Amino acid sequence: MGFWDLKTLKLEEFRPGIWSKLESGKNLTMAVMEIAPDKEGVAHDHPFDQCGVVIEGEIEMSMGEEKKLLRPMETYFISAGIKHNWKTAASSAKILDIVVKQG
Amino acid sequence: MGFWDLKTLKLEEFRPGIWSKLESGKNLTMAVMEIAPDKEGVAHDHPFDQCGVVIEGEIEMSMGEEKKLLRPMETYFISAGIKHNWKTAASSAKILDIVVKQG
Repeated sequence: MGFWDLKTLKLEEFRPGIWSKLESGKNLTMAVMEIAPDKEGVAHDHPFDQCGVVIEGEIEMSMGEEKKLLRPMETYFISAGIKHNWKTAASSAKILDIVVKQG
Repeated sequence: MGFWDLKTLKLEEFRPGIWSKLESGKNLTMAVMEIAPDKEGVAHDHPFDQCGVVIEGEIEMSMGEEKKLLRPMETYFISAGIKHNWKTAASSAKILDIVVKQG
């Protein structure tokens, strides 16, 4: 519980090229993620919604048949069960991402 | 499901001085809210987490014994069961707010 300043928040590398910080409560997990250029996720789906907003840089998000290059102040809402993925190109990206807490 | 550009997204007045747009899926609700200056919520709590980030302007958020004036790129995470409130002063505020979907 509390407040973060995304301009100064320290992140930790949790996979090569991805730095993050998470907070979980009873039923939400909020994560800041900074992703290096030229990285790509693995298309997947899950039985819960996910949403977020781009803070810095650019990231391509795909969900179902839709694909969009998102820039700062652009949001995404991925409905439960929809296959989705993400990809960075020339620019890194910092995003704030929220999912229903698992487990 | 989809993408929003918060710089141009049209909001609708749902209470005097508060404009919003919501998207809900199976278990999350994401809302953009723009709140006029000199508005204040009513302190309350609920049995689910809530979080968000300030997009524009300034808003004072209180949770439990903590109180903080939040500016753009500052986040809040309100744990389930914690009493919280918000207040704007001289500036309006635009926030992106996420809660577990109710009902």
